[in-house]
Amino acid sequence: MARQERAIRTRRAILEAAGAVFDEHGYTSATIAMVLERAAVTKGALYFHFPSKESLAQAVLDEQVPLGAVPQQPCKLQEIIDTTFVVGHRLLGSALLRGGVRLTVDQCAPPGVDHTGPFLRWAEHLAGLMRQAGERGELLPTVEPRDTAELLVGAFAGIQLMSRALTCRADLGHRISALWGHVLPGIAVPGLLLGLDTRPDRGARVLAGMSTGTPGRGREE
Amino acid sequence: MARQERAIRTRRAILEAAGAVFDEHGYTSATIAMVLERAAVTKGALYFHFPSKESLAQAVLDEQVPLGAVPQQPCKLQEIIDTTFVVGHRLLGSALLRGGVRLTVDQCAPPGVDHTGPFLRWAEHLAGLMRQAGERGELLPTVEPRDTAELLVGAFAGIQLMSRALTCRADLGHRISALWGHVLPGIAVPGLLLGLDTRPDRGARVLAGMSTGTPGRGREE
Repeated sequence: MARQERAIRTRRAILEAAGAVFDEHGYTSATIAMVLERAAVTKGALYFHFPSKESLAQAVLDEQVPLGAVPQQPCKLQEIIDTTFVVGHRLLGSALLRGGVRLTVDQCAPPGVDHTGPFLRWAEHLAGLMRQAGERGELLPTVEPRDTAELLVGAFAGIQLMSRALTCRADLGHRISALWGHVLPGIAVPGLLLGLDTRPDRGARVLAGMSTGTPGRGREE
Repeated sequence: MARQERAIRTRRAILEAAGAVFDEHGYTSATIAMVLERAAVTKGALYFHFPSKESLAQAVLDEQVPLGAVPQQPCKLQEIIDTTFVVGHRLLGSALLRGGVRLTVDQCAPPGVDHTGPFLRWAEHLAGLMRQAGERGELLPTVEPRDTAELLVGAFAGIQLMSRALTCRADLGHRISALWGHVLPGIAVPGLLLGLDTRPDRGARVLAGMSTGTPGRGREE
């Protein structure tokens, strides 16, 4: 294995371990020693990549939006819907994502870590897709892309939190489906509604398509 | 002052102080000593009302739903809308409410405290109002009162959290207004939409009406 590739793998192992530790213990109670033990790397390797607990937290937070990547769709609203379902489904399996989400929603903002970043980056990412949806005529003329994007980000944050508290996120797909059932009639042109796929298992199907290279394209597939 | 009245006041002072301490420090870092100092009561008085930190946290959590009380309205959807705006507005002024919300959304569930209670009690409260709205013909026939109530509770939890992170809740009224702008077209009969008051300052106006005894009745007032 080339030296650079090894460094990338080590960095990734540390990040995954840090995500799990932040998810389980929260920022304040988490320690570098816990991350070291879980990642099974040397102290030197960890400090080479991350000089402090703050920098570890920041790196975990920075991984959130990339974990919401989905295949492009002809319908941009479907792509936005897919993003929410994929993040919801990934929350079940990825401690790195769970750690980032806990760092975002827990009130104790670690000093030196940009607590608001994930909210704003998610909003910007979804607002970009919303603008594309608008240009393609998918949205009602009253929709403000940025307002809808911020509503989706805020609502999603709370819905996953309620799902975690009540069912350890087992019903998250159903709750995301309910979110879209309530929001779509107010933003999408009526002709689009029946063709959009907002079934609770959408996230699992999109991810399965990504791993086999045949992304689902909505209900008509 | 009668003995019983004094006890009620002392209990309230302790609760308010505990709410502020939980809001600022979170459950884990909060101590009984912090509550004692802020409430300016004796240790004996505190332990008479609350034998432990857990019982204090539970009592703070139990205060949430009563703080969402609003005047009855002829339109039950307006009453639900008012509840969200009043809670949003009260979050700015009531450390007791903020403490309860932080205890609900922070991931570190205190042992022995019912973490899921507030989610379920809010959902039950709003579902009851939704059922009344349905009986009065205010809702589209596809609406499931409990599903909509749970969506509102989850979405509200996240929206206030995002508003806290980004603006210390200064824009919460605007975000609640955006929530209703997105959700109402999917649940309310169309003829109702223009008559509902979802302006960002609705919470302040309802509370002002409650203190003068002349509750606002929506846009037509």
